[in-house]
Amino acid sequence: MNSDVLPESVSNLIEEFSKLPSIGPKSAERLVFYLLKHDGNRELGKAAIDLKDGLVRCSTCQNFSTTSTCKLCANPNRNTKLICVVAQPLDIVAIEKTGLYRGRYHVLHGVISPIDGIGPEDIEVESLLNRVEAEQPEEIILATNPNLEGETTALYILRKLQDSPVKITKLAHGLPMGSDVEYADQMTLGRALDNRQAF
Amino acid sequence: MNSDVLPESVSNLIEEFSKLPSIGPKSAERLVFYLLKHDGNRELGKAAIDLKDGLVRCSTCQNFSTTSTCKLCANPNRNTKLICVVAQPLDIVAIEKTGLYRGRYHVLHGVISPIDGIGPEDIEVESLLNRVEAEQPEEIILATNPNLEGETTALYILRKLQDSPVKITKLAHGLPMGSDVEYADQMTLGRALDNRQAF
Repeated sequence: MNSDVLPESVSNLIEEFSKLPSIGPKSAERLVFYLLKHDGNRELGKAAIDLKDGLVRCSTCQNFSTTSTCKLCANPNRNTKLICVVAQPLDIVAIEKTGLYRGRYHVLHGVISPIDGIGPEDIEVESLLNRVEAEQPEEIILATNPNLEGETTALYILRKLQDSPVKITKLAHGLPMGSDVEYADQMTLGRALDNRQAF
Repeated sequence: MNSDVLPESVSNLIEEFSKLPSIGPKSAERLVFYLLKHDGNRELGKAAIDLKDGLVRCSTCQNFSTTSTCKLCANPNRNTKLICVVAQPLDIVAIEKTGLYRGRYHVLHGVISPIDGIGPEDIEVESLLNRVEAEQPEEIILATNPNLEGETTALYILRKLQDSPVKITKLAHGLPMGSDVEYADQMTLGRALDNRQAF
């Protein structure tokens, strides 16, 4: 019925937006009518078309890159003896924002999740193991999310590296800064108690 | 800092998505990484670029169209004596979905909102008044939203048409179907009482 009311170019873009996660048909309609009223549809379109042009995975850390070795891995100021293992590139963005980490990364591009049919062979575990053998780092920080899939993935990597001399650590769990003890969930408060630190 | 971590094409698309309403930087990142993992970025891009190609406003109803008279206005089965005035094209989509309206429309492309600096001259009121004079319809349904701006706009049009013989109506207000009297807001319940109907 929309075909009688909306021009094809309009329903086309509504359809494409609707395919994206967390954008329902109503939101898609609103986005398209926003673009009809404002500039920017061509810029958005060009950026979407160009998104994957020349994009490869860094041969060292597997992050998206335009060169075979990404800028971060090629940076001589980064500590090559420290590898932080993350599930996805956005985790790197978050960690870099802290300004507290000067090592390098390894992007798994996913986590082990049997319910979704994702096993260790579907994510970048093998490239990590090869890299550890070749680079002989001093420490590996397993920075996967503190949930079922993230911890499963971390445990799997831990087991695979148990015969390696590398030191393996994980991010600290506890109360988020600025939070209330009163409103903390049981799991988080439990971890905060277990891992309590001397003043 | 992102420039070191994310390739330019990735941050470009994140930036373009962030410009859209209700999409924050975090959501934009998630959408882009979804597109990196899945197909569809080129289709989305093409649809966005083509959005406004050949798009004009229908010379009769002002809705977006690819022809100077839109399909709906050109449809001989629609009642030309009935004009439903709506604020935006999406309202037409909603009304058409009811399947109960066989007249034509007039799209204002906005509502009068002094706080946003939008006056009657910024929306399609004049084209409506000209059209009423030329077409001499029997009835005009003012279907703007039942809120301050929508009612102000309806009242303005009502006043402008007070010397015209055309019958002017508005959508009924009352309890939404499937709702609870208990949870209805005061305004809605008040309207429902005022406009009570004989069984």
